[in-house]
Amino acid sequence: MATNVGLIGLGLMGRPMGQNLMKAGFSLTVWNRTRERAREFVEQGASTAGTPRDVAAKSEVVITMVSDPPALEEVLWGPKGAIEGLQKSSVLIDSSTVSPALARRAAAACAEHEAEFLDAPVTGGTWGAEKGELVFMVGGRKEVLEKVQPVLAAMGKKFFHLGGHGAGQTIKLAMNMILALQVDALAEALALVQGAGLDGERLIEVLQASMARAAVLDVKAPMILAGNYPPSFPLRLMHKDLGLALELANQIGVSLPATAAAREIYNAVKGATREDVDYAAVAKFWQKS
Amino acid sequence: MATNVGLIGLGLMGRPMGQNLMKAGFSLTVWNRTRERAREFVEQGASTAGTPRDVAAKSEVVITMVSDPPALEEVLWGPKGAIEGLQKSSVLIDSSTVSPALARRAAAACAEHEAEFLDAPVTGGTWGAEKGELVFMVGGRKEVLEKVQPVLAAMGKKFFHLGGHGAGQTIKLAMNMILALQVDALAEALALVQGAGLDGERLIEVLQASMARAAVLDVKAPMILAGNYPPSFPLRLMHKDLGLALELANQIGVSLPATAAAREIYNAVKGATREDVDYAAVAKFWQKS
Amino acid sequence: MATNVGLIGLGLMGRPMGQNLMKAGFSLTVWNRTRERAREFVEQGASTAGTPRDVAAKSEVVITMVSDPPALEEVLWGPKGAIEGLQKSSVLIDSSTVSPALARRAAAACAEHEAEFLDAPVTGGTWGAEKGELVFMVGGRKEVLEKVQPVLAAMGKKFFHLGGHGAGQTIKLAMNMILALQVDALAEALALVQGAGLDGERLIEVLQASMARAAVLDVKAPMILAGNYPPSFPLRLMHKDLGLALELANQIGVSLPATAAAREIYNAVKGATREDVDYAAVAKFWQKS
Amino acid sequence: MATNVGLIGLGLMGRPMGQNLMKAGFSLTVWNRTRERAREFVEQGASTAGTPRDVAAKSEVVITMVSDPPALEEVLWGPKGAIEGLQKSSVLIDSSTVSPALARRAAAACAEHEAEFLDAPVTGGTWGAEKGELVFMVGGRKEVLEKVQPVLAAMGKKFFHLGGHGAGQTIKLAMNMILALQVDALAEALALVQGAGLDGERLIEVLQASMARAAVLDVKAPMILAGNYPPSFPLRLMHKDLGLALELANQIGVSLPATAAAREIYNAVKGATREDVDYAAVAKFWQKS
Repeated sequence: MATNVGLIGLGLMGRPMGQNLMKAGFSLTVWNRTRERAREFVEQGASTAGTPRDVAAKSEVVITMVSDPPALEEVLWGPKGAIEGLQKSSVLIDSSTVSPALARRAAAACAEHEAEFLDAPVTGGTWGAEKGELVFMVGGRKEVLEKVQPVLAAMGKKFFHLGGHGAGQTIKLAMNMILALQVDALAEALALVQGAGLDGERLIEVLQASMARAAVLDVKAPMILAGNYPPSFPLRLMHKDLGLALELANQIGVSLPATAAAREIYNAVKGATREDVDYAAVAKFWQKS
Repeated sequence: MATNVGLIGLGLMGRPMGQNLMKAGFSLTVWNRTRERAREFVEQGASTAGTPRDVAAKSEVVITMVSDPPALEEVLWGPKGAIEGLQKSSVLIDSSTVSPALARRAAAACAEHEAEFLDAPVTGGTWGAEKGELVFMVGGRKEVLEKVQPVLAAMGKKFFHLGGHGAGQTIKLAMNMILALQVDALAEALALVQGAGLDGERLIEVLQASMARAAVLDVKAPMILAGNYPPSFPLRLMHKDLGLALELANQIGVSLPATAAAREIYNAVKGATREDVDYAAVAKFWQKS
Repeated sequence: MATNVGLIGLGLMGRPMGQNLMKAGFSLTVWNRTRERAREFVEQGASTAGTPRDVAAKSEVVITMVSDPPALEEVLWGPKGAIEGLQKSSVLIDSSTVSPALARRAAAACAEHEAEFLDAPVTGGTWGAEKGELVFMVGGRKEVLEKVQPVLAAMGKKFFHLGGHGAGQTIKLAMNMILALQVDALAEALALVQGAGLDGERLIEVLQASMARAAVLDVKAPMILAGNYPPSFPLRLMHKDLGLALELANQIGVSLPATAAAREIYNAVKGATREDVDYAAVAKFWQKS
Repeated sequence: MATNVGLIGLGLMGRPMGQNLMKAGFSLTVWNRTRERAREFVEQGASTAGTPRDVAAKSEVVITMVSDPPALEEVLWGPKGAIEGLQKSSVLIDSSTVSPALARRAAAACAEHEAEFLDAPVTGGTWGAEKGELVFMVGGRKEVLEKVQPVLAAMGKKFFHLGGHGAGQTIKLAMNMILALQVDALAEALALVQGAGLDGERLIEVLQASMARAAVLDVKAPMILAGNYPPSFPLRLMHKDLGLALELANQIGVSLPATAAAREIYNAVKGATREDVDYAAVAKFWQKS
């Protein structure tokens, strides 16, 4: 019999993840803050639940995929939150990007209900979510990961077990720090080159023939050169993740000077930009319109 | 008849460049501040000259490859410097990494002697120099580049013409900014992950499966994990290049916040480290021994 | 008849504040997490209460003076917290340094109990607390400040009404940013001067004869020159306040590059230092022992 | 008989310094790059010379007061520069703000001519120059300072002997770092407060009643609040001095993270501002017009 899977959060990432779960044959129950998003799932045979608690009450595996820590706190501990509905021996998997501390709080809350918890944030973006090729960075007990791997396998292709509760989030924050700095470095270099009167495209051409080539530069350089930033990974979320990384670093006494400098540039752009833009828009710091 | 080529500077880069010039059949005259380095060239059939001026006086193409701006000023304008020996219609190619302003000064001095100038810094490291696979970033007149391309082709495989005098140096500095920030970002991320009690090798493993993968991380991550930094590109030179990039940026009013933050970390490590180390040793900022 | 005043938190600041409240004749009820601290107050005629809720239940004015946001959340909303004991028409005054957002949450919670709230962080340190010369930075309704001014006057000499709920905290964070940067600037300048082989004391002497003179430098320079940091205002609290300032700035999209850089230096020292030190110990970043 | 004093540079600072030298009865010879500036001095009885060399040739004490290192190099070593005119046993005093390395080069050049050198940058601004109340920060031999003190006393009131050649410049750069960071800290704090919807003037009022009070804030806060920046000490010179401080720090391996962050803000404003403004205009970084 198919495992009952619950999915809380049907946004840019949650929606394709849910579709892949259905394709794989899981019996799916969904919930989203704005109800309309659930409709297409129901039409395809999924159930919907009135509250996160009800999702949890019906599911052996519950997946949360929401935009930030307050949103996760709301669906877990808010009125009729998922925690209070958790079944004994069920597994709550959080694929949002939040702080390791919040992951550990969720793990402790699960333990009180005799349920298991994994923090399992992902990389791969909406493209990876649609193709079912996400990479999962997992913190928690290895046996639990093995147990739910068939569920994760519907959505992703790689599953890294990285340590205890919070380890997945820590590695995810570290990865996003690197991406944010790689793209900011490109933006600083382009600003220098263009400020000196040269053609930015020539810099990109040279970079791709050099040790400075990087996967993310291939994707973001064209956006920066065009000054056009349709959101693939939104700047506001990258800015949030830099904040989470710095919060963790400041709790444990690790100094991150360049990350802190970059965060303030993302912050300046966030403060000055109305529309929702990709994080490559960090380059708007230098692109005075 | 083979072009007479002069080579000033037989260090880590200049030595293999010179050997490739000889292999390609050019008639080579060399000079190095410490004389002994010239001996092996003489044994293989090259000429040596007593001063940079004498190198220039004997050469149709003169290449300079020294470690920093003061060294270049010395070989060009110091007592018996190359500039005063330049032949009419000869070409001076500087492959050192210096400021675009210094490149333009050299171009002006060449013009006074009715000689041509190219700034042509390289990327590819000692490995690329040995294999003859350097990438040249060239500023100056395109016709001049075409004229000397047979000489450059003995040492490299790609020749980007990037603009007028100084353009090669500007692009080179932009590239090194990016490399310095990519490696610093990796070091910050590893410090965070290890400070949180996790295994740094797992971060690298995940990165390589993600959009954060980058050519330089593959090379430098093992050095940082091992805490062992045999110099491939020395930290003192990367620190110098960050200074040149910031000097240029501050001349033209382009703000580089993360580059400036990273420069101070490289600076802290430079100040605290006795031995000559690779720039991946930026990670020593967090690796308190 | 004397106003019933409740005081929650008897630490370095709360203790002398309480003593001044007693001297001024207020009928005082105290509570502290570690009970023993209340004893001396009882001996002098104060009451003690078993819980923050009981303090609130007995008081017309309740003052909280605790070390950080989690501590405030605990005494306000934890089990038997002050909020649930608040009397109608009473006033809760928080003199801790916390985020403006938390101040507004406390104000909303007070309103639900038909009580008033002021955020009223202080400056003046333990010395000012002992002398009854604190300066209060107040956010909330002006009429409420006027009503409780006799209570505040027992502890301080100046009362700035700065705006609505949270305004006191915002100004306090701005002030501490400035102090943190002034002291870090002194530390950086001394590191430069001493690194260049000069006598740091001569720098201080010159500064005091110049436009760079500042009240805090007079106090902190001797500590840095001696390398001895008995805590007057602890570094861990300054580090926390920089975090709160950056959190606010990143919520509202205001970029704070130098504050962010300084926070990472305080962070590095916090991470490397075992004992409790004054924030002048930021200079330990350069004072490798 | 009155000492023959030469003065090279009649700008905002040099002009009032020269007038005070004349008032004190010294026999003065002046030179300025733009000749007209010398005329008023000639009308008042001074001599003028055709070249810096001629100034030196006629003077027992030569004072240079120019805007930056290239200007100093030009008047000392350019065609018909002062160095080649120096009389045996004369004293060259440089009151410009330049690098300690350049001060030491000048000292060495003086020694070759059997002349003495002092680096003697000043603080006090144009106001102090006019009142004859400058403070001199002096590097060089103490006996030389004693010998020329009557000359300096015509222009200033305090003379700090701080060490050997370059010590005056090092202390001056350290002082300007502190000033630049104090004013940037104020600007960051005001941006935060105003971004949060509060009145910036109230912050200033509170600061002045607190430990964060500082001489420079009294002067610069009204400029920032008014958004009006008539140059007292121009931003372009403060930006230059931050560059000199960082150059020194990076030569000796002392990391200056907050100074580096602040320099990039001054740089951004310098790059975006056409007119000549006071360094308090660093606040324009946040004051988007």
